[in-house]
Amino acid sequence: MTSRDVSRPICIIGLGLIGGSLLRDLAAHGQTVYGYNRSTSGARSATKEGFDVSNHLEETLRRAETDGALIVLAAPLPAVGPLLDTIAELAPSCGITDVVSVKTEVYAMVKERGMEGRYVGGHPMAGTAESGWGASRTGLFQRGAWVIAFDHVIDDEGKEARVSPEWIALWTDVVRMIILVGAEAIPARVDRHDAAVARISHLPHVLAEALAVVGDNGGALAQSLAAGSFRDGTRVAATTPELVLAMCETNAPALLTALEETLELLQGARDSLAAEVPDLSELVDSGHRSRVRFEARQGNRSESVSPVKISSRPVLRLHPGAPGWASQLIQAESLGGRIEVF
Amino acid sequence: MTSRDVSRPICIIGLGLIGGSLLRDLAAHGQTVYGYNRSTSGARSATKEGFDVSNHLEETLRRAETDGALIVLAAPLPAVGPLLDTIAELAPSCGITDVVSVKTEVYAMVKERGMEGRYVGGHPMAGTAESGWGASRTGLFQRGAWVIAFDHVIDDEGKEARVSPEWIALWTDVVRMIILVGAEAIPARVDRHDAAVARISHLPHVLAEALAVVGDNGGALAQSLAAGSFRDGTRVAATTPELVLAMCETNAPALLTALEETLELLQGARDSLAAEVPDLSELVDSGHRSRVRFEARQGNRSESVSPVKISSRPVLRLHPGAPGWASQLIQAESLGGRIEVF
Repeated sequence: MTSRDVSRPICIIGLGLIGGSLLRDLAAHGQTVYGYNRSTSGARSATKEGFDVSNHLEETLRRAETDGALIVLAAPLPAVGPLLDTIAELAPSCGITDVVSVKTEVYAMVKERGMEGRYVGGHPMAGTAESGWGASRTGLFQRGAWVIAFDHVIDDEGKEARVSPEWIALWTDVVRMIILVGAEAIPARVDRHDAAVARISHLPHVLAEALAVVGDNGGALAQSLAAGSFRDGTRVAATTPELVLAMCETNAPALLTALEETLELLQGARDSLAAEVPDLSELVDSGHRSRVRFEARQGNRSESVSPVKISSRPVLRLHPGAPGWASQLIQAESLGGRIEVF
Repeated sequence: MTSRDVSRPICIIGLGLIGGSLLRDLAAHGQTVYGYNRSTSGARSATKEGFDVSNHLEETLRRAETDGALIVLAAPLPAVGPLLDTIAELAPSCGITDVVSVKTEVYAMVKERGMEGRYVGGHPMAGTAESGWGASRTGLFQRGAWVIAFDHVIDDEGKEARVSPEWIALWTDVVRMIILVGAEAIPARVDRHDAAVARISHLPHVLAEALAVVGDNGGALAQSLAAGSFRDGTRVAATTPELVLAMCETNAPALLTALEETLELLQGARDSLAAEVPDLSELVDSGHRSRVRFEARQGNRSESVSPVKISSRPVLRLHPGAPGWASQLIQAESLGGRIEVF
């Protein structure tokens, strides 16, 4: 074991697309990892493939407590509260992280239970329309962003808070796990995370749904003429409604802000289209500039066919727990930068 | 020459992406074709590649008049009025079609000049962000929709109008030209065409611009976390602003209708997000159904990598000018169907 290894076993609760893919990657890298899956068939398939998987939750959590594992909650949001209660009972000394796509609500559940001293929020930006163990695969997280929260390090006045060495060790292990599976650890506080994903993940879903409906309202002729711009603009409307609703409704306050900004832009466009001399240049020019900036920032991350992906995110190296690390995390957050730990 | 061939030479005015690609495809199929390009360098490149191309407009139009060519206007909208005037003077007996993406305004210019008896509106759904002779290529139109207008066949009361045998022969030749280059001829009246493309081409551009701006407003963190849904949803915002403005502003009335429908849906979403219990299911469920219907209609047209594309559009065969053909065209229009001519 080198200083870059995760210092404890990892126990994954929920082996769907995210949890299952994480299990595969960690095992492939020689990390001690085991998991629990609620569906018997998923657990059986995983076991057949040689993974250390059970479908007894209590047994799995007792084992985690015995060997001091890091517990990864990879279950959907509605399951998180009950799981936290069960962990409080059966694995009271384990550190916990999660992969839920909206972070404020999960953190509120953690704080309600007084568990923030043993919890580190996480969110890999790797969701797809597929789900279940059958959708899991190795390499899912490669070069993707994996947000790691750090609210616990900041006190109510925005200053660096004192945190326990155990929490620092837990946080460091979560970073190491993220890096081990090839993802990039992006620090962000839960409200900043939720505001960001509202803009770049939840809003695109809402707009795609609306575009799909308005295109459909054009009937067979419009659908017959539809080509690339409509196809791309509506692609994510193919996602299962349940998944879209879970993301968007749980993040309602942040999505509301993003949607209201959008409505203001579109109402401006409507007014200028209705004018005697239509002039959309304000929206179109700024939209074009924004997209060009996005492409520049993405580097070749946007080329999904590129065999070699080079990260275009700035990197910050830090010593977890060293004086000033809270400011470094805030700096990385504002840059959308990835972190590495000494 | 078989009965399926175009019965006259084709003269293309403007050899950009559309006009240049049309020249290449027609020549490759043995069709007599020549063209004019305003840019000397484009004309020279085309000539070097062995095409019959000039950069003398008047000379080219006189030649078209001499050999009774079908003139294809492949110039941007602002050039259309002056070109119609020059054609009226130098090629007074030639039939004319065009490829401009908005049809009502072109048809108004044609009618102002009393030229509707020698004009057939067209629009290949094949625009991309590229332009100029350098962007032209063979096969651009393969399996794509190419709208062909038929307003001239319908009188003010919506009944079949009497049209000249010359116009019928012209219309038939435009259909044959479309089919010759591998495209599918979709009949549509100019207002129906403009309403349809507002929904499936111009609206996607407006939404992409707005999404790009709102994502950019999220700063570096949001841009760092952006992945597939944001990338796809903003792709067409990379199009040159001039092209987007030309399409959207020229089609302002139809785009306004589509945008107002969108605003109503998004305002509904805003209200339900602001409610105590957010519920987006109405929008998300109908968006999902619409996208699924779109995919079903597209068949494998949506698979751009598919080596063999099978048309999923219904086909109607008709005898141009035969009694009842106006009703057949209206039927094809309402189905988004493609036509073949006997």
